Amino acid sequence: MPSAPSSQPASPPVATVPWSPDATVAEAGEFGLIGEFVRMFEQGEQVLLGPGDDAAVLRVRTGHVVVSTDLLVEGRHFRRDWVEAVDVGHRAAAQNISDINAMGGRAHSLTVGLALPSDLPARWALDFARGFADECASVGASVVGGDLTGASEIVVAVTVMGACTQSPVRRSGASVGDALALAGRQGWAAGGLAVLGRGFRSPRALVEAYRRPEPPYDAGPAAAQGGATSMIDVSDGLLAEAMHLAADSGVAIDVRRDAFDLPEPLHAVGAALNIDPVSLVLGGGEDHSLLATFPAGAALPEGWTVIGEVREGEAGTVTVDGASYDGPTGWTHF
Amino acid sequence: MPSAPSSQPASPPVATVPWSPDATVAEAGEFGLIGEFVRMFEQGEQVLLGPGDDAAVLRVRTGHVVVSTDLLVEGRHFRRDWVEAVDVGHRAAAQNISDINAMGGRAHSLTVGLALPSDLPARWALDFARGFADECASVGASVVGGDLTGASEIVVAVTVMGACTQSPVRRSGASVGDALALAGRQGWAAGGLAVLGRGFRSPRALVEAYRRPEPPYDAGPAAAQGGATSMIDVSDGLLAEAMHLAADSGVAIDVRRDAFDLPEPLHAVGAALNIDPVSLVLGGGEDHSLLATFPAGAALPEGWTVIGEVREGEAGTVTVDGASYDGPTGWTHF
Repeated sequence: MPSAPSSQPASPPVATVPWSPDATVAEAGEFGLIGEFVRMFEQGEQVLLGPGDDAAVLRVRTGHVVVSTDLLVEGRHFRRDWVEAVDVGHRAAAQNISDINAMGGRAHSLTVGLALPSDLPARWALDFARGFADECASVGASVVGGDLTGASEIVVAVTVMGACTQSPVRRSGASVGDALALAGRQGWAAGGLAVLGRGFRSPRALVEAYRRPEPPYDAGPAAAQGGATSMIDVSDGLLAEAMHLAADSGVAIDVRRDAFDLPEPLHAVGAALNIDPVSLVLGGGEDHSLLATFPAGAALPEGWTVIGEVREGEAGTVTVDGASYDGPTGWTHF
Repeated sequence: MPSAPSSQPASPPVATVPWSPDATVAEAGEFGLIGEFVRMFEQGEQVLLGPGDDAAVLRVRTGHVVVSTDLLVEGRHFRRDWVEAVDVGHRAAAQNISDINAMGGRAHSLTVGLALPSDLPARWALDFARGFADECASVGASVVGGDLTGASEIVVAVTVMGACTQSPVRRSGASVGDALALAGRQGWAAGGLAVLGRGFRSPRALVEAYRRPEPPYDAGPAAAQGGATSMIDVSDGLLAEAMHLAADSGVAIDVRRDAFDLPEPLHAVGAALNIDPVSLVLGGGEDHSLLATFPAGAALPEGWTVIGEVREGEAGTVTVDGASYDGPTGWTHF
């Protein structure tokens, strides 16, 4: 058993704070804000010592810890005029928890560092923390520590720790002949971002999917139990992540364009913006779907759909319907 | 035994990179830089899976993990014209490792997230990583993962994991009558910062102490073994940290001004800048000295010096020679 994240209720609503809701983070102060955060962060049974000291202390019964870290930067990973603080909180937690799922594990503990402009409304920070706490609570994970400091733009730094019930599923295990499979929504966030970028707010379902991803948290452990040979989190773009799998496994991968069952809103966006909706699926990230390979002919766990196959070829090559693809494959970080 | 960080050599010198030393981080690219970083980050025996997948996997033999996280922001925690990249790397690792020591533990694994402007020289990032890796290696800890993204200013986000050989020493255990004791250099970094702020570069010893702290890494575990009742890392200022100990322990603390054996360079800075050198000791942080309390009359471990005592009084009250202190007590984060 993993060090069993206990099932936790969502955090309580933010209580009345001792400063005006319109106060800035500088007026609320470092310790005032931290005090409010800690009230929101419920602690699971694995937490021997929670936030408030030089370090937290976690009980680890499994003999191992799976750990990952991610940054979100305002203006690059989110815009405050497009995404509410509570959603940025959900998203920051979700994208990190997803990295543990992509190893076949489950998250149990997170830390969060916040660099905030001094004139940012304190309410933004509180709403962010509430979203972050709620997303963690949804998978039974605890927020065990953090840091808070000033900066000229918002930077959110998250580290997540978790555990696997069997060997972690790496990126490097795909073999020629394996089926390539996908779990979770894919292309929805890219569709939402595309419409926001053109000044629209609908289709609502896609905009909401961009604002608050719903990663398939159970699909990672299910894939590990189902014999997945390799797995990766789709954060930067489906084809870009497929290239990572192919490169690390020393194989080529082919993705089938007709494998995707496009939901109506993606067709609508494609028509409205005059783009092929499949390009949103192939190049989109930020839904935090999972991409994995399974032995040929294996029965796939629930929630997984075959979208291609592993082939012989130059390591890292990814084709679409057997041909090179010239559309966008993913996000560039610089 | 803690999950024994193996003794590791310092990382090898940076090998020739496949781009010009004058390239920007955007030209070097995310994956180009990550490839170079990973070559610098040697992995200890506790690392089952190191950098390069969705998450790292660490072996944990002790049944627990001590974890802490900290941010450094350019212009707030360092200035590029005052501190070389390699020193920022050392410092980022040191201030995090110190948080584990302040619990009485030792660090074994770290992650590092870097948000970097796209026009930053790639050399800065490589030098930072080398300093970071070398500081970690100096205590036998491994850099097991990270993240790299663009931003308009440099933000460094570090998470450190470690282990204790006995119960962690918290901030809340000080009792009336306990001795207050200090380990490590104190006031040196504040002295260095004071002279840099006035355009000077000497005394060299203080400027170097500011640029690259030398935390007393063995003093934390020694204090835990020696019966320390409470402990904290001095990162924001000696009196500010004493207030945390006093508040969390529900006691008052008095610091003795004549307890500090001021080194000659601090006297020199005081004379040159017309300030009381003791104020640099009382208000200074960033040396990452340790502050702890011990039962009255206990023999102190090596490296620890009594500088005051725990008294009855309003929780969180800190006095100097029995009187309130009106000088700077520490750093404000907003």
